[in-house]
Amino acid sequence: MEFTIRAANVDDCKDIARMITELAEYEKAIDQVRITQKDLEQDGFSKNPFFHAIIAEVPEQHKMQEGHTKVGYALYYFSYCSFRGRAVFMEDLYVMPEFRGKGIGKALMSKVAQLGLAAGCQQLNFTVLNWNKSSLDFYLNQGCTDTTAETGYHYMCCKGEALEHLAQP
Amino acid sequence: MEFTIRAANVDDCKDIARMITELAEYEKAIDQVRITQKDLEQDGFSKNPFFHAIIAEVPEQHKMQEGHTKVGYALYYFSYCSFRGRAVFMEDLYVMPEFRGKGIGKALMSKVAQLGLAAGCQQLNFTVLNWNKSSLDFYLNQGCTDTTAETGYHYMCCKGEALEHLAQP
Repeated sequence: MEFTIRAANVDDCKDIARMITELAEYEKAIDQVRITQKDLEQDGFSKNPFFHAIIAEVPEQHKMQEGHTKVGYALYYFSYCSFRGRAVFMEDLYVMPEFRGKGIGKALMSKVAQLGLAAGCQQLNFTVLNWNKSSLDFYLNQGCTDTTAETGYHYMCCKGEALEHLAQP
Repeated sequence: MEFTIRAANVDDCKDIARMITELAEYEKAIDQVRITQKDLEQDGFSKNPFFHAIIAEVPEQHKMQEGHTKVGYALYYFSYCSFRGRAVFMEDLYVMPEFRGKGIGKALMSKVAQLGLAAGCQQLNFTVLNWNKSSLDFYLNQGCTDTTAETGYHYMCCKGEALEHLAQP
């Protein structure tokens, strides 16, 4: 199937917000989603953006019943590994279920890798849910390593009241 | 013990590089360190920096035999959670062994939390090695959650030849 991968612009935020919701449903985490289209517009498309995104788009003739031509996205940002230097973190990689198995996910991830290398990044990092066997297999097949399984790195989070409390001098 | 926490500047890169090496030794990962003082100067202190850092410093009278007054650091960058928005990622939190147990680590982490909240961040993320029980306990005592243990998120990495290969169109 024909598709194109391109940098997202501010007009894509409605579709990115929709697909973030779809991804959260798939990850059984819909209750955690606070993000809105407006947040994405502000945080990704003003000066000093907090993230970047790319979009997978299919031609009009392949669009779905609902009329969507934007069928996948990757959201990423530049980060840093103190041992190895510049890195890129892929926060999301998502393709709508009806469009999977056509190489779109692979093409999105490949583009993030290209953009990372072009910026001098030495590694591409991301997280995956341990029950998401098909995604884990996909990543391992691409030569990625599971740092949690191999080295024992746990991903930690501080938010809400704990974060407010921690910030008290 | 008296100490101050302040934003790092380019002249701190020599000491940050030294402490990154000490941290890598502690984490039994010294063979993975490629970073140099020059990398840090370039990546953290030019336009669009890849990271930010803060330094813990003790007065001259507390300096060690080796003459170090910079005894700890935190390295962080702004990131993004597609479910919750703006976030800050703490890549490193390190205090030299001789200066532990004096509240320096807590003060550094607190400062990162403050800087994150001031930038509109909803969460502070980081990783911890599962065998590093004392650090894990410290973080859990601060109200942090272990996302890997609770939700199953694994940290993944693609680098070297795998990254080059992935980037092939």
